[in-house]
Amino acid sequence: MTISSAEMQSVLYELFLKYGFSETRAKILADTHTENTLMGVNSHGVNRVPAFINLVRKGIIKINEEAEPVDAFGSIERWDGRYGSGVINARKCTDRAIELAKAHGMGLVALRNTNHWMRGGAYGWQAADAGCIAILFTNTQPNMPPWGGRDSRIGNNPFIVAIPRAEGHVVLDMAISQFSFGKIQEYALKDEKLPFAGGWDENNELSDDPVELRKKQRGLPIGYWKGSALSMILDMLATLLSAGDSTYKISQKEEETGVSQIYLCIDPGKFSDPNISEKLLNEIIDYTHDVPPMNSGDKVYYPGERALMNRERNLANGMIVDDKIWREVMELVNQ
Amino acid sequence: MTISSAEMQSVLYELFLKYGFSETRAKILADTHTENTLMGVNSHGVNRVPAFINLVRKGIIKINEEAEPVDAFGSIERWDGRYGSGVINARKCTDRAIELAKAHGMGLVALRNTNHWMRGGAYGWQAADAGCIAILFTNTQPNMPPWGGRDSRIGNNPFIVAIPRAEGHVVLDMAISQFSFGKIQEYALKDEKLPFAGGWDENNELSDDPVELRKKQRGLPIGYWKGSALSMILDMLATLLSAGDSTYKISQKEEETGVSQIYLCIDPGKFSDPNISEKLLNEIIDYTHDVPPMNSGDKVYYPGERALMNRERNLANGMIVDDKIWREVMELVNQ
Repeated sequence: MTISSAEMQSVLYELFLKYGFSETRAKILADTHTENTLMGVNSHGVNRVPAFINLVRKGIIKINEEAEPVDAFGSIERWDGRYGSGVINARKCTDRAIELAKAHGMGLVALRNTNHWMRGGAYGWQAADAGCIAILFTNTQPNMPPWGGRDSRIGNNPFIVAIPRAEGHVVLDMAISQFSFGKIQEYALKDEKLPFAGGWDENNELSDDPVELRKKQRGLPIGYWKGSALSMILDMLATLLSAGDSTYKISQKEEETGVSQIYLCIDPGKFSDPNISEKLLNEIIDYTHDVPPMNSGDKVYYPGERALMNRERNLANGMIVDDKIWREVMELVNQ
Repeated sequence: MTISSAEMQSVLYELFLKYGFSETRAKILADTHTENTLMGVNSHGVNRVPAFINLVRKGIIKINEEAEPVDAFGSIERWDGRYGSGVINARKCTDRAIELAKAHGMGLVALRNTNHWMRGGAYGWQAADAGCIAILFTNTQPNMPPWGGRDSRIGNNPFIVAIPRAEGHVVLDMAISQFSFGKIQEYALKDEKLPFAGGWDENNELSDDPVELRKKQRGLPIGYWKGSALSMILDMLATLLSAGDSTYKISQKEEETGVSQIYLCIDPGKFSDPNISEKLLNEIIDYTHDVPPMNSGDKVYYPGERALMNRERNLANGMIVDDKIWREVMELVNQ
């Protein structure tokens, strides 16, 4: 079915109010879940709402808590998320990193004890809208084996880099896994193989069969041993700077909660002429856009370009939402 | 043949003096090339010396220039490498980023107009030795097609993350390509296939055949489209913050020169108890080390662990150096 962003915002706002969030918090949550869906990331937009409400009901996400600073030195700060909503904490910590960047050129907030931030790219766009470069990442529960190991002990640790640009921000938003388990499920539902290996099957072989991959959640890091090492070191940075829980500690909980995150912002306006910056960015974009395609019809996109295309299309035509998901959301509202 | 680190240092020091470097600069260069070889990275240690001298002779690397600051705001600075040696510029900019981190919690130096820094990990170890976390990267000439494109228009842009640790620093040092062309050459010499696809052959197919891959230098980014986007955005960050040359501009030169780099340091000691930090890091290392192996005999390493093992072995037994390379070096010294 098709839903307009205004309708989704209004329904979700009601829902979050009903489950006890304050008006301000309910609005941030409704706006962010809607924005994520507009950008084409339903998996971390509307589709994730029922699971989020479930964690609220269980008391794992604390509706009356939000991130507070616990320590500071110059341009770096440590915050405690107090197990509040990951989205609300992420919005707040991104704002604080932007403030620090405006004051010092650069700012870093290390956040512990927070919850899933849904679509990390949302905070990249937030920083870029404020004129800041952002580097953001989070640890997660384990869902990939470290290279050479059999069991999942590293997280897919989404990693975001955002660069402000007048014609459309450049935003990389990627997990360190080659495919998310959400994406693997989509292939399974379509009865298709993955285009490349996405994890390990029960015989400890790399596999592109989504049905096999879903039996044991052992995803493949991008670049094999390279992504394995990158995932590990992102977990170390987030854990160390926030003095928070690592993927190891998160693995010992029944649900994924209390994750650790980094919000690093840089204000390029401090010594860059925006016109020159724009020219330098466009030079890189044009050079890669203009490449002859590998196969006829292929096209090269800059990071974030397709998200913007999704947004424009969804604003014009409404968002396509799974019937079953929307029914679940409406039932939660009307229950 | 086997060479001790003392012998290599002394020979290289003579060599760099002979080609006009000051005593201070010759020592930095000799030490860094030796250290890179000790760490097991001959390709960016002793093996690279003849090519480096060639660039010095051509005047592409300016022996009497080094990086100087051109602009500053708070914890971020922009430096100009003045086409000096990439190693000397990198040592200087890493030191400056460390200083800024000690003063502000965090420091960033964006460097333009520099030359190849050899092994990026060297500066990660430098920062970690000073108690700092470091995130460092460089752009390069194009050597991989952007995802969907046919020609190489993105660089393999080495990316380094270092974390200080009493028992041995954790240092990730990876290019964004799945395999370097140096590594692909090694497989060709051994007449072996790569373990995974490493680039595109002449029929625009992904290939694991090193002979085919060397015909057209079209490497594969880690994680296919993900590494392609990561390479692009690292180039953007380095170019924008340094107001330097992008991979596009570098592609228009006859030789790779005038690259752009980022040196970001964070001082975790500003609010972390070193004992707690060590415990948190070891928790992650132990959890991944202790994983049952995928195949009997497999072992999981933390990033940088094998470099340290190489160093210990090479310090004890001397470094194994290709006879032909060492002969070339000695000829350059005695010419």
